[in-house]
Amino acid sequence: MKFEVLILGTNAALPHNNKITSAQVLNADEYLYLLDCGEGTQMKLEKFKVRKNKIKAIFISHLHGDHFFGLPGLLTSFGHHHRKDPLHIFGPVGITRYVQVVLDTCQAFLGYDVRIVETDTATSQIIYTDQKIQVSTIPLKHRIPTNGYLIRQVERPYNLDGEKIKKYNLSIEQIRQIKDGKDIYLSEGNRLRWQDMTLTPVKQKAYAYCTDTVYDETIVALINGVDLLYHETTYLDDMSKEAQERMHSTISDAAKIAVLAGAGKLLTGHYSGRYLTTDDFLHAGKKLFEPTLLSYEGLVIPI
Amino acid sequence: MKFEVLILGTNAALPHNNKITSAQVLNADEYLYLLDCGEGTQMKLEKFKVRKNKIKAIFISHLHGDHFFGLPGLLTSFGHHHRKDPLHIFGPVGITRYVQVVLDTCQAFLGYDVRIVETDTATSQIIYTDQKIQVSTIPLKHRIPTNGYLIRQVERPYNLDGEKIKKYNLSIEQIRQIKDGKDIYLSEGNRLRWQDMTLTPVKQKAYAYCTDTVYDETIVALINGVDLLYHETTYLDDMSKEAQERMHSTISDAAKIAVLAGAGKLLTGHYSGRYLTTDDFLHAGKKLFEPTLLSYEGLVIPI
Repeated sequence: MKFEVLILGTNAALPHNNKITSAQVLNADEYLYLLDCGEGTQMKLEKFKVRKNKIKAIFISHLHGDHFFGLPGLLTSFGHHHRKDPLHIFGPVGITRYVQVVLDTCQAFLGYDVRIVETDTATSQIIYTDQKIQVSTIPLKHRIPTNGYLIRQVERPYNLDGEKIKKYNLSIEQIRQIKDGKDIYLSEGNRLRWQDMTLTPVKQKAYAYCTDTVYDETIVALINGVDLLYHETTYLDDMSKEAQERMHSTISDAAKIAVLAGAGKLLTGHYSGRYLTTDDFLHAGKKLFEPTLLSYEGLVIPI
Repeated sequence: MKFEVLILGTNAALPHNNKITSAQVLNADEYLYLLDCGEGTQMKLEKFKVRKNKIKAIFISHLHGDHFFGLPGLLTSFGHHHRKDPLHIFGPVGITRYVQVVLDTCQAFLGYDVRIVETDTATSQIIYTDQKIQVSTIPLKHRIPTNGYLIRQVERPYNLDGEKIKKYNLSIEQIRQIKDGKDIYLSEGNRLRWQDMTLTPVKQKAYAYCTDTVYDETIVALINGVDLLYHETTYLDDMSKEAQERMHSTISDAAKIAVLAGAGKLLTGHYSGRYLTTDDFLHAGKKLFEPTLLSYEGLVIPI
């Protein structure tokens, strides 16, 4: 089952040289999700031939412009492209008012439902589940309320345990419910747990998206053992004082978190415009954590 | 004195193939002004090496997303680039609330003043004057309140009429005021009109920016004799019924207005995404009005 990330933008603060700020597409078996949405995201979605209308949900980390100014254009483009499916949007408090005022200002007729949920950036909570993924929040420490997102693959429909299924005379509908991860009530109080009727799923992959944040070890417990960790690396280590003040991370901060969390790989990004190339991020990262990767526009990483 | 337009975007509704929606830069003797601001405008300003901080004012025609979704990114970029000069923004009712909510949402510290004036889209009014230009509104007929902008060059400082100046014993300050187009009071009731003390200025150029609008002859009186008329041409003539319904113009609509107004040249644009090339706009336009021009990203037109 496909579970991969496509990078659309890696700049901190400002677009530059036709490269945009934060935006990524998560593809879970052709269910698509957007992580942040900097200005110009819709242009990059077109460039990389992403089928926009397959995006189920958008997860915004925080309300600095470089992470959400592409939202209005994308929402109205969905309408122009005759989207019918509802769109889920998650983000910190303030995002509902923002989207409402934008849509109100341009008197947009979208033609589909926008369902916005404001996240509690102080505690980790499961906020979204569908057939392919489960998403929970990761509280982060930045200048304004911010949370990352932990995305775990779920495997549905579950594979039935044939032996056990034979024992009960289940209807097609009941079997469908078990495959979908729902318990069955044969009679009052006589419950069949879906876990008992299905084979143990293969270990599911997990992706942690952590931006923007200062170095903060409290997230380690939440992201322990993730296969891929995206952790912002706004600066090289020469700017560690500024990183602390501005509540951003250096490359070594990110690599240390990857080590502590036992992550499979570290994906760096959110590079400050002061750096003309990102090579030094790779070298510095690999010193502390060998499986460090650079992000760049168009990169696809299987998780 | 330079008086020219740089085209940043010509698409109707949606960006496509890395081309953006409406945005133009007017350069009046190195005073810069922005006409509309579609998503990605700041990227195109960078691409064409426009010195962003020299932009004095932004004129928004109406609050459909393809004309103003680039505003938030540009406003925060000005801040990142240490802008200090105030920025004037003009646009229909609703733009103040929009800008305030955006800036409030991202808790932006801009470091410069934003001075917003909401336009009355029903009547033509002079809304802005500085050392280089005077701008008045052109009421347009679209699905939501919309106005175009008529921009006239002003020539300041005015050239003094040496003969007349000699007659009065004026101070340097008084001479400066006359050059700047201000009258002088020698004593109570004894006024020297600046027009009487200066040479007749050479004919000043005018640019009319008219988008979005259905065919509407009532604008002809306002734009009479302009040197360059930008008039939206969303469709070719095969779509005249749809143009009418959607309150847009065809190429022939625009050419007819150019003829009626005695414009020097017609600049077309705001092309629907249904057309793969714009050649047919040029041919159809020239049939009715020979000095018809196509707009495209990067085009610079002296007015």
